[in-house]
Amino acid sequence: MRIAQSIAQVRQLVREARSAGKSIGLVPTMGYLHDGHLALLKAAKTGTDFVVVSIFVNPTQFGPNEDFENYPRDVARDETLLQDGGCDVLFLPSVEEMYPKPLATTVELAGLGQTLCGASRPTHFRGVTTVVSKLLHITMPDKAYFGQKDGQQALLIQRMVFDLNIPSEIVTVPTVREADGLAKSSRNVYLTDEERPHATVLYKALQEAKQTLMEGVRSGTSIAEEMRQRIANEPMVVLDYAEVVSRDTLEPLEKLEGPIMLAVAAFVGKARLIDNVQLTLVGDDVIEG
Amino acid sequence: MRIAQSIAQVRQLVREARSAGKSIGLVPTMGYLHDGHLALLKAAKTGTDFVVVSIFVNPTQFGPNEDFENYPRDVARDETLLQDGGCDVLFLPSVEEMYPKPLATTVELAGLGQTLCGASRPTHFRGVTTVVSKLLHITMPDKAYFGQKDGQQALLIQRMVFDLNIPSEIVTVPTVREADGLAKSSRNVYLTDEERPHATVLYKALQEAKQTLMEGVRSGTSIAEEMRQRIANEPMVVLDYAEVVSRDTLEPLEKLEGPIMLAVAAFVGKARLIDNVQLTLVGDDVIEG
Repeated sequence: MRIAQSIAQVRQLVREARSAGKSIGLVPTMGYLHDGHLALLKAAKTGTDFVVVSIFVNPTQFGPNEDFENYPRDVARDETLLQDGGCDVLFLPSVEEMYPKPLATTVELAGLGQTLCGASRPTHFRGVTTVVSKLLHITMPDKAYFGQKDGQQALLIQRMVFDLNIPSEIVTVPTVREADGLAKSSRNVYLTDEERPHATVLYKALQEAKQTLMEGVRSGTSIAEEMRQRIANEPMVVLDYAEVVSRDTLEPLEKLEGPIMLAVAAFVGKARLIDNVQLTLVGDDVIEG
Repeated sequence: MRIAQSIAQVRQLVREARSAGKSIGLVPTMGYLHDGHLALLKAAKTGTDFVVVSIFVNPTQFGPNEDFENYPRDVARDETLLQDGGCDVLFLPSVEEMYPKPLATTVELAGLGQTLCGASRPTHFRGVTTVVSKLLHITMPDKAYFGQKDGQQALLIQRMVFDLNIPSEIVTVPTVREADGLAKSSRNVYLTDEERPHATVLYKALQEAKQTLMEGVRSGTSIAEEMRQRIANEPMVVLDYAEVVSRDTLEPLEKLEGPIMLAVAAFVGKARLIDNVQLTLVGDDVIEG
């Protein structure tokens, strides 16, 4: 595995791989890798010939009172995991390399980026879509891989690539979970032993909502309310939101049909956790994905 | 010359040229071509091996009361001019091809896009930078060519490409002028015979301001005011703005030094005309460009 710290270096390595006829895969991460990231790497290894994993804790997607400074980092461990996973290039730029002067340009999905997590984190998705567009331009991958756990993020990036004709395919990889259902996340490290068992309530609320859908209920407001109560009643957990939205508009739906997302977010101690389930409703049928 | 009406078609033609080892040049236009556009084509022919000219009257860069519907169009004449000029591909997409569904994504330079022309046309540059990013993604040129006449536009696009790491070089080509100095523009067709002689006041005001700079004056406010009075006093001409700005921030400067732009805009009858001069001030020296 090669490590590139500069944009020029990673571009050179990608150019060499392209010249050798290889297709390029990109896995953008903020590091502190877990099994969810390794599933992205595995999917990229399967789907493309030459895989670049980027590790960049992007300051512009953190709000002023969020955890940028304290976001967990362990590059030495990440390097070993990537090496073992068959990553070809680790792109590890500094903040100065990515932002040599203050950005005048933003790439934004104003409507879709202000709902759900965007309501609690108003500048978050602008930072995400802008930095992802930079990473796509730097590596020009055939395919880029994102986790379904960050459901709104993946949908925004898909829409950005469609709207702007960016010549990369966005692949979404299913959420990897702990044995009790908790979605793997770098931020799970913030959970104390006491808090940890309660964090599964996000997964449980989603599963119960899915069960309600399978029983034939099609009211978005009643299912959202069921999830809210389930989460709000859990000790040590503070609800941020629980919504049932259209996967196209990300707006809450009353009459449920077609491609939907059940999306939840809650604070458990210092950790803000998110999770979601994506379903397609066709008549009485509830189809995964 | 090939004509591509779909994105898939132009991409295929570019891919074939790339496979043959050719470098790609892009000249984005709104058609109704004049000598200014042909200078862009010529520069692209010199700088790259395979030139795509796009003609697309982009609705998103026109305000609600602007001239989108009446913008001059003559595709048959444009085709002949491009054929004669040695263009390889004319990309001629429909509005539906470029915007198959309403855009959720915008690419914006909020600060730099709200001054000068952006003050009079608040959504204009958002439309420009978004559609140019689409055209760059569609054709992935080595170099893209823009006229210096649209000075703010060229600076915004250069900054966008820098900020987002878009792998294309932006080349600015000097303004082509009529014998009396009026900058060539598709919108000059709006001028009546009576109005036409007065339209040269933009050029004259810029040249007089440049002369004042060469005499050693370095006050931005006094030079801007001199240009404003010169334009406002011309019959049949209504001043929009006249400013002396930093080429980096596009903000008006008081003490003039380094790379600056003298920029003017005025209404002459139905036509809104713009013009500019780019200079670099080093001590007593006034350097073109």
